[in-house]
Amino acid sequence: MTNYPSMESPNCPTPLPHSDRIVMGHGSGGLLTNRLVKQVFMPRIGNAILDTGDDAALILDNLKNSYAVHKLVLSTDSHVVSPLIFPGGDIGRLSICGTVNDVSMLGAAPLYLTAGFILEEGLDVKLLEKIVDSMHIAAEEAGVSIVAGDTKVVQRGKADGLYITTTGLGVVNYPNNISGASACPGDIVIVSGTLGDHGIAVLAARGELGFSAEVKSDIAPLNHLVQEMIAVSKHIHVLRDPTRGGLATTLNEIAHQSRVSIILDEKAIPIKPVVAGACEMLGFDPLYIANEGKLIAIVAKEDATYILKAMQKNPYGIDAAIIGEVHEYSSAEVLLKTEYGSTRILNTLSGEILPRIC
Amino acid sequence: MTNYPSMESPNCPTPLPHSDRIVMGHGSGGLLTNRLVKQVFMPRIGNAILDTGDDAALILDNLKNSYAVHKLVLSTDSHVVSPLIFPGGDIGRLSICGTVNDVSMLGAAPLYLTAGFILEEGLDVKLLEKIVDSMHIAAEEAGVSIVAGDTKVVQRGKADGLYITTTGLGVVNYPNNISGASACPGDIVIVSGTLGDHGIAVLAARGELGFSAEVKSDIAPLNHLVQEMIAVSKHIHVLRDPTRGGLATTLNEIAHQSRVSIILDEKAIPIKPVVAGACEMLGFDPLYIANEGKLIAIVAKEDATYILKAMQKNPYGIDAAIIGEVHEYSSAEVLLKTEYGSTRILNTLSGEILPRIC
Repeated sequence: MTNYPSMESPNCPTPLPHSDRIVMGHGSGGLLTNRLVKQVFMPRIGNAILDTGDDAALILDNLKNSYAVHKLVLSTDSHVVSPLIFPGGDIGRLSICGTVNDVSMLGAAPLYLTAGFILEEGLDVKLLEKIVDSMHIAAEEAGVSIVAGDTKVVQRGKADGLYITTTGLGVVNYPNNISGASACPGDIVIVSGTLGDHGIAVLAARGELGFSAEVKSDIAPLNHLVQEMIAVSKHIHVLRDPTRGGLATTLNEIAHQSRVSIILDEKAIPIKPVVAGACEMLGFDPLYIANEGKLIAIVAKEDATYILKAMQKNPYGIDAAIIGEVHEYSSAEVLLKTEYGSTRILNTLSGEILPRIC
Repeated sequence: MTNYPSMESPNCPTPLPHSDRIVMGHGSGGLLTNRLVKQVFMPRIGNAILDTGDDAALILDNLKNSYAVHKLVLSTDSHVVSPLIFPGGDIGRLSICGTVNDVSMLGAAPLYLTAGFILEEGLDVKLLEKIVDSMHIAAEEAGVSIVAGDTKVVQRGKADGLYITTTGLGVVNYPNNISGASACPGDIVIVSGTLGDHGIAVLAARGELGFSAEVKSDIAPLNHLVQEMIAVSKHIHVLRDPTRGGLATTLNEIAHQSRVSIILDEKAIPIKPVVAGACEMLGFDPLYIANEGKLIAIVAKEDATYILKAMQKNPYGIDAAIIGEVHEYSSAEVLLKTEYGSTRILNTLSGEILPRIC
């Protein structure tokens, strides 16, 4: 099953009770699945396309300017964050924003999403409803519709509450190719706000900090921010959201794709004191900690100030800052000029700092 | 991360070993994730779009006839089948065919797929390679490319080997609206082959039959079959693949969407003797057992013979048969005329017969 038909047969002999816990039958594809869809999904994420009840969603009819469409973008992410709810967000908001942001990072406007749910038997349906509510709120904020979905159930102990895989479709309306391969020597590196908030918030929610810290995840849909940046400059070369592996890993990917070196100015990198403090106590480097509502932009030097100003006007770009420059490739891909005047190499994350952060 | 960058930093200080088992670090988004992608995914499902290494896949540039595109189709399915490998297929082939088929059921030609993997810590990488090989073979057969992917790892005991969520994008080139809501009184119901093979094959692989039966799953990509049907008739009204819940549940959905009754002729419904025998011993009705390589077509009476002949020329339609007719809604949505001359109502599946069948 893919779309969510509103099916309650007139000859259904046994009305089924309202569900409080997920049971295996919710994955049957039959009446119990339908009842769950009607109880949990349709009231929250229903829309004309999802309601059709077919095996797939027919969509381009509804695309704005369908005749002008030349470039589409597809992106997918599976979400397995633990715990399911944490300060500043939950797996539902994460699943929408993660995919909205990935689509946006090619300069595309995300329009349609799909969502595949893997539910663990015994899951509290109230919790599921809360998470789908959160998806709805995030989708509304981003201005995207969920046009197809699927629900599977696995036995107790074969998942961890629930996992959500979202896929996004977007349209590019930008003249140039925004890509990790487009960074040029001379370009300026901008980050949209403080780093490490998401990773530390999830760690705090797990009780793994060993002390209390008031940190909220930064999870946010960045598509509107991206469109506002695009509106003021034709010279945005790279956009990327530094999620797993953090700023350092993401910049290594970009430097590698573009065959350049990136030199960062440590004192310019925005980090909340509480996050910096938590990282220091735990022995983490905040430049490797995951973010879920931040982006890195690499832009032509002459447009950097305009772009920065446009970013700072958006609620998700208030703390945006210029943090470095792109150079011809020399000794390493990413280098950090420290506050003490020395320079150190920032490598790609090699092991695992924080599992199941997204 | 969404696309799969080929990233092996020139300044990577510690070459990482070839992996035999999935470890949590394979979900880090860093070097270990990249190594896994290079070892397992790129050699098998790599292509020009997937190789770009960006957060999303830019695709319409590559769509054939991009200026003529008016209708796109999106569909998603999460796959949790147990066991991972069974006679006639595995979760990899299932994940490709399931989504290819859902896209095809609106009359669309599937073009691009995405795949999100949730891997359990400790998973044998050789098994993962085998499954991705199988995805590659199925994608080649269907003629689709996997253009974006994601890999997450969860701790031992938080999944069951692996789960795969695929999403498909396709293009419709058919004048009419193929939909579950388009069945009309007088239409003919065709099924593309024998029913129940997949469910019984998976049950046999689980050792739950209690006896041995030589049944293979029917998993197959049906997109070419659909295109051949479309080529001979402009009057195909409904296409649907009877997966979870089987033929009976799927026909109930269609009858409900179209507000009609469907009357089936039991003796015309193709079922392999071994499947019929297994069902009889287990107390199952094969009309409720899942299929993964079959479709139901509801078509205008005057074209039924042409369509049936076209189907029988395709390897996945050799056993296609006319099994019933659509009528004005009367007492029930789906009725079965039995071999003994009586008539019984076929309701929607209400509980769960075979969990984790797809």
